[in-house]
Amino acid sequence: MSKQKPEVLGRAGAAECCPTLLTAPLDEEQAAELAPVFKALGDPVRLRLLSLIASRQGGEICVCELTPAFDLSQPTVSHHLKLLRQAGLIDCERRGTWVYYWLRPEMTDRLAAILTRPATAADTAS
Amino acid sequence: MSKQKPEVLGRAGAAECCPTLLTAPLDEEQAAELAPVFKALGDPVRLRLLSLIASRQGGEICVCELTPAFDLSQPTVSHHLKLLRQAGLIDCERRGTWVYYWLRPEMTDRLAAILTRPATAADTAS
Repeated sequence: MSKQKPEVLGRAGAAECCPTLLTAPLDEEQAAELAPVFKALGDPVRLRLLSLIASRQGGEICVCELTPAFDLSQPTVSHHLKLLRQAGLIDCERRGTWVYYWLRPEMTDRLAAILTRPATAADTAS
Repeated sequence: MSKQKPEVLGRAGAAECCPTLLTAPLDEEQAAELAPVFKALGDPVRLRLLSLIASRQGGEICVCELTPAFDLSQPTVSHHLKLLRQAGLIDCERRGTWVYYWLRPEMTDRLAAILTRPATAADTAS
């Protein structure tokens, strides 16, 4: 994360104050860093997995509850979970038989911030 | 857009009031609709193109200004622009010799909204 530029990294109030993808051109380094995260979201199974994990009351969910939600094999679900984890969107921990997953909200916060229009533009557009 | 569910579609104040990817599990239809948009963003050239278009003062940019920003052929840049357009992220119009591109902010607004934590969760987390 040390490569991120402060103006992109800033979470609190990013929508109000800071340049985003919509207000200043991304440089090559920023684009190379962000593209794999969006790519990880570019699959309907991974989007649903992320959503199941993120919306879980209590903040984490057992893989044993994720797999039955899909008509997919356990290895296929695990592969999708691995891609989400490599993208920094989720993290996990093994406890006994099962692996438990949880959201890394700093990454979804970052994506939301760079896609958010500055307040003035959002107020006047559409 | 008629397939979108109201609670996901809602733009104004979505961060404050409405279910997002982070608060309620996406159904298959929503995931199938959103995944191609994220996939379109899952490439560094397309991210930079979108950012160049979106951050343009005046709201639109000629393809003749986009191509020189990349070490890529005109057809390659045009192909990436086509994928962004098919995803609903940008639109374009030909005027004389050149094609002009602009952001469709309703789509980036929608992505930002579904990635935004509800205010209460964001306030208490990390």
